[in-house]
Amino acid sequence: MIKIGILGAAGYTGGELIRLLINHPEAEIVFANSESNAGNLVCDVHEGLLGETDLRFTAEMPFDKVDVVFFCFGHGKSEAFLKEHAIPNNVKIIDMAQDFRMAAPTHDYVYGLPEIHKAQIKACQHLANPGCFATCIQLGLLPLAKAGLLRYDVAVNAITGSTGAGQKPSATTHSSWRNNNMSIYKVFEHQHLHEICQSLNELRPTNAPAFADTLVAQPQADEITVDFIPYRGDFARGIFCTEVVRFEGAEGSATNPTAEQLSALYKEFYKDAAFTHYCDTDIDLKQVVNTNKALVHISKFGNKAVIISMIDNLLKGAVGQAVQNMNIMFGIDEKAGLRLKSTAF
Amino acid sequence: MIKIGILGAAGYTGGELIRLLINHPEAEIVFANSESNAGNLVCDVHEGLLGETDLRFTAEMPFDKVDVVFFCFGHGKSEAFLKEHAIPNNVKIIDMAQDFRMAAPTHDYVYGLPEIHKAQIKACQHLANPGCFATCIQLGLLPLAKAGLLRYDVAVNAITGSTGAGQKPSATTHSSWRNNNMSIYKVFEHQHLHEICQSLNELRPTNAPAFADTLVAQPQADEITVDFIPYRGDFARGIFCTEVVRFEGAEGSATNPTAEQLSALYKEFYKDAAFTHYCDTDIDLKQVVNTNKALVHISKFGNKAVIISMIDNLLKGAVGQAVQNMNIMFGIDEKAGLRLKSTAF
Amino acid sequence: MIKIGILGAAGYTGGELIRLLINHPEAEIVFANSESNAGNLVCDVHEGLLGETDLRFTAEMPFDKVDVVFFCFGHGKSEAFLKEHAIPNNVKIIDMAQDFRMAAPTHDYVYGLPEIHKAQIKACQHLANPGCFATCIQLGLLPLAKAGLLRYDVAVNAITGSTGAGQKPSATTHSSWRNNNMSIYKVFEHQHLHEICQSLNELRPTNAPAFADTLVAQPQADEITVDFIPYRGDFARGIFCTEVVRFEGAEGSATNPTAEQLSALYKEFYKDAAFTHYCDTDIDLKQVVNTNKALVHISKFGNKAVIISMIDNLLKGAVGQAVQNMNIMFGIDEKAGLRLKSTAF
Amino acid sequence: MIKIGILGAAGYTGGELIRLLINHPEAEIVFANSESNAGNLVCDVHEGLLGETDLRFTAEMPFDKVDVVFFCFGHGKSEAFLKEHAIPNNVKIIDMAQDFRMAAPTHDYVYGLPEIHKAQIKACQHLANPGCFATCIQLGLLPLAKAGLLRYDVAVNAITGSTGAGQKPSATTHSSWRNNNMSIYKVFEHQHLHEICQSLNELRPTNAPAFADTLVAQPQADEITVDFIPYRGDFARGIFCTEVVRFEGAEGSATNPTAEQLSALYKEFYKDAAFTHYCDTDIDLKQVVNTNKALVHISKFGNKAVIISMIDNLLKGAVGQAVQNMNIMFGIDEKAGLRLKSTAF
Repeated sequence: MIKIGILGAAGYTGGELIRLLINHPEAEIVFANSESNAGNLVCDVHEGLLGETDLRFTAEMPFDKVDVVFFCFGHGKSEAFLKEHAIPNNVKIIDMAQDFRMAAPTHDYVYGLPEIHKAQIKACQHLANPGCFATCIQLGLLPLAKAGLLRYDVAVNAITGSTGAGQKPSATTHSSWRNNNMSIYKVFEHQHLHEICQSLNELRPTNAPAFADTLVAQPQADEITVDFIPYRGDFARGIFCTEVVRFEGAEGSATNPTAEQLSALYKEFYKDAAFTHYCDTDIDLKQVVNTNKALVHISKFGNKAVIISMIDNLLKGAVGQAVQNMNIMFGIDEKAGLRLKSTAF
Repeated sequence: MIKIGILGAAGYTGGELIRLLINHPEAEIVFANSESNAGNLVCDVHEGLLGETDLRFTAEMPFDKVDVVFFCFGHGKSEAFLKEHAIPNNVKIIDMAQDFRMAAPTHDYVYGLPEIHKAQIKACQHLANPGCFATCIQLGLLPLAKAGLLRYDVAVNAITGSTGAGQKPSATTHSSWRNNNMSIYKVFEHQHLHEICQSLNELRPTNAPAFADTLVAQPQADEITVDFIPYRGDFARGIFCTEVVRFEGAEGSATNPTAEQLSALYKEFYKDAAFTHYCDTDIDLKQVVNTNKALVHISKFGNKAVIISMIDNLLKGAVGQAVQNMNIMFGIDEKAGLRLKSTAF
Repeated sequence: MIKIGILGAAGYTGGELIRLLINHPEAEIVFANSESNAGNLVCDVHEGLLGETDLRFTAEMPFDKVDVVFFCFGHGKSEAFLKEHAIPNNVKIIDMAQDFRMAAPTHDYVYGLPEIHKAQIKACQHLANPGCFATCIQLGLLPLAKAGLLRYDVAVNAITGSTGAGQKPSATTHSSWRNNNMSIYKVFEHQHLHEICQSLNELRPTNAPAFADTLVAQPQADEITVDFIPYRGDFARGIFCTEVVRFEGAEGSATNPTAEQLSALYKEFYKDAAFTHYCDTDIDLKQVVNTNKALVHISKFGNKAVIISMIDNLLKGAVGQAVQNMNIMFGIDEKAGLRLKSTAF
Repeated sequence: MIKIGILGAAGYTGGELIRLLINHPEAEIVFANSESNAGNLVCDVHEGLLGETDLRFTAEMPFDKVDVVFFCFGHGKSEAFLKEHAIPNNVKIIDMAQDFRMAAPTHDYVYGLPEIHKAQIKACQHLANPGCFATCIQLGLLPLAKAGLLRYDVAVNAITGSTGAGQKPSATTHSSWRNNNMSIYKVFEHQHLHEICQSLNELRPTNAPAFADTLVAQPQADEITVDFIPYRGDFARGIFCTEVVRFEGAEGSATNPTAEQLSALYKEFYKDAAFTHYCDTDIDLKQVVNTNKALVHISKFGNKAVIISMIDNLLKGAVGQAVQNMNIMFGIDEKAGLRLKSTAF
């Protein structure tokens, strides 16, 4: 059994992580830390756990008793925490915040997107779990990035549920306002753009070898740029994203693949992914809600392609992916604890 | 033109009142008072007014320039305000709070339910506007109360939208929690029970004369009691209420009317009501949303009857009824400014 | 591995059953029968299964290859099917419809509510799975029925999600109508009343022995009756139910228990239940959505008590309970395949 | 009083039109035609009209008694109807369908978008009312089209409520599927693209004069093209649209205006519009729901601009605009009957 400690366990992601881990066949929660809720029953704080666990929050942090610690802090607090607390070297860290998502010589955190970093994740001690929008958008674009096909500005529109806004009540999460409403925020300036572009440019074939049978990747000198409009949706869970990309050149050439080539490219790219599936059919958001799955679809229209990608923001977009990463880090079945029944309706 | 001042104009009811009054053909807002928002455009604070008004909030209260003042304070603040401020005798007051809803020798506020108090409203200087649940439940039960037919505990279940919880964000108005959820609160102890029972017992025929052609009202010695379960619904506007009452005696006798007699009783009771309509057909909440209407339906099952009553909590349950009361107080068309298009969908 | 056949596999309950069984550790779907969808991929028909199964619908019914058959037909079709098809004696049947829910000398189906019939379920060959409303309402009332405390008409108000109305589109499941709406139907006449009253009167202590330390059950000559108002709610999954019961006699006597005695009665009654939990705290619907759990809470007000009971209508109210029954019938862990992550938000 | 006949009065747009016209101070419904509902009360068929009208549907079409006829048929049926029925020359026609939206020598219908065609509407006898998406998207782009600033593919993402899908129940309007869901359809191929591009190119300054003080419009040889992704939203009313446009050249030049120039351009363009307002602040969909307003906002990011435009699809996107057009055609107050209270919540 993997022995687990959770810091920031009374927040949204902490709660969802506990909901996953209590049914994980090879994991055991040793402590769920929360100063403000110390002593309280977890099931009295987190929705949906009544009758399933007697676990209580604790103010303690017995790092010597665990194999891995999940940081469920708000952004910016993970780094601060580490300056004030020593975590034993043999304890792995999975950080939910954005503190270590950008690669830097000052830290050794691996960016935990299994679809591109599985080997590094397996080998790492410290992991930065990707953001929710970032995961969804990357999964829609990674195959094209790797094939050198993101040569023009990518237009991304992604709609998120209210759980993406966190636990704290505010004007824009007030049910009276959000119910049946729609709005946008942080247009072209969302903080996840950094990690998205980091991955896309990492895959970009700067002096490109062949990529696959179906397509020959072309060298691409220029950095990939993404125009991203985030929307506040009128639902609780999930991110539904469209990405529009433009190609040039004769259809069927290396710079302007056919619909069939694009479909083949995506299938090839995700053929070994445990939770990311390419679909030839139409897809809708509730097919992934309450699961760790990502679904991706691409269609061709003239010299443009439209991709749909979608995830549950709290699962594949947060703690589901974190548990997937944990499974990889500890060498167990990547799907352990993540065979979740889709809500479907 | 009726000249109007609004106190507490930056709150929920203040906003909805302004939405009504800017299109009222015989009313004019002279001032909309809000200390915290003084100087701000009303349309920047209240949803739905962009392009419709240049009105700004003011910290002033020029009572000498108005005919009527609406108190849109929270409960308990109206009475406090009046202790510290003098309102000229010729200025009428319409109070949205519950401070003066219970009759008392210490004040002269009339309980503003037009369906039973039209003459008093017409004559009054000071009016206490009914509560939202209170309005909905009374409109379902008043005809039976007047006929002396509420002899056994009345079972009331009423579901309210999130706007009933006010403007301030909280855990139970957080969209992530409220979306697709259902819960109850203040079971059997909701504060509106006082005003409900006040009206029902006021109508109760203690030494009963004939009530109508259809039914002979019976004297009823005992006070009427109501068991009320309020529900938090997963929608923004409206109250949907069922009331179950029990009769005894032979069907068709004065204490156990037939379905036809009940239907006739309700039609007779509401035949002159401007906004309350008895329906023989099935009804659903969205038929009243965004209108000042109340719809009522009664069915008989054995020796019990089930009533449905429903209103928009912000309109007939709050400022719509307040404007209706203002119209009556000033002797103008009762429907002026209240011919509202139902949202319907 | 329990080998499973599903008839009517393309309907709502068929879909949800497949969503459960593909992750059941000790079950295997041998065939999913649907004439109209024969040959189609299950994941193309049923939401939420993309990437999880390659199963296809079949027009065949190889009963000799299975241990148990689930009937996911509409009501009335199970009986008709059995007249035209022979199912081998050694194959167990779990019927989702209401055809065999009422005990009768003409059939041997056991009413599959594990909270009261666990031994019979374990021993049975044929099982009638309870209805959704019926499950929820019974779980709220069974402890009181057994204690002889349902002596007066029980007032039941239960709100169901749109999945309760089935898969076929109709006026009252049209999103434009149902969104943010509320209505009632089949008032006092819902077909589930039969099975509800069957269970309540089965437990009724007609010449009553002691029930528990906390309460001495009283003999109760009269049948229990239930007044049930079903509501159409503005959400997809779940049933939220309140039950109001009246007691008489001195508080603390056997006919009018105290709040503590009631709480103890419920805890005792459900102490061995795998999925039904008594809660002392406030509960809300989303605590059970997408789980097989039922949560129950009781409060006392004067000489009345208000119970809340709630379930997911498709799981504990349908196929979740069916799988629970299957687990009991085959002597395996009652929770196998049913450790579901609550949606929570 | 303008005397009105309605054909196809039992459909969605027919119902919403009646909801508007019963409160229109200068209009009177003479007949509401529906073969299938002939004799039925309008308020029994259309939500939200109980207590407001005694009007009944009729199978008759007394064209000699009306000044104007509204065609509320499905697409394609208006033209067919006119081939079989003679409408007197002095009776005006307002067609809700798309049959005559594209200018053609074969008909004299004016495209009824008041923001660009007010004089033609005033003078016309026959009017083609714009589509819902088409209205919303055009209002976001028209000022830029007129300034010759739509030189690169415009990226449009627009989310519509379920009322956009019409009255007939279907799989994608089923509440169980649509609730909390999100999907796309008719990607890049929506039929409204024709009328959108017709207007945009009509305004395009092909050999451009000065447009405004703030900007000098540039000649633009190439046709404007629009990439449009329609989304099915999880709400009933409204269209929320973003449009992304790209500029080239030095910021502040005629081909790449500054944020201030863009804002000034929009304000100037809409300064006389009765219902379309440019907003400098953030906007959200519910600000227009249940009104005839359109709100528009533009922001600049680098060499791109993001526009938000939004309307109520049944009002400004359908019958509200039709009534606005009728008002203009009959020379009365453009806002008559359209001073609607926003739902706001």
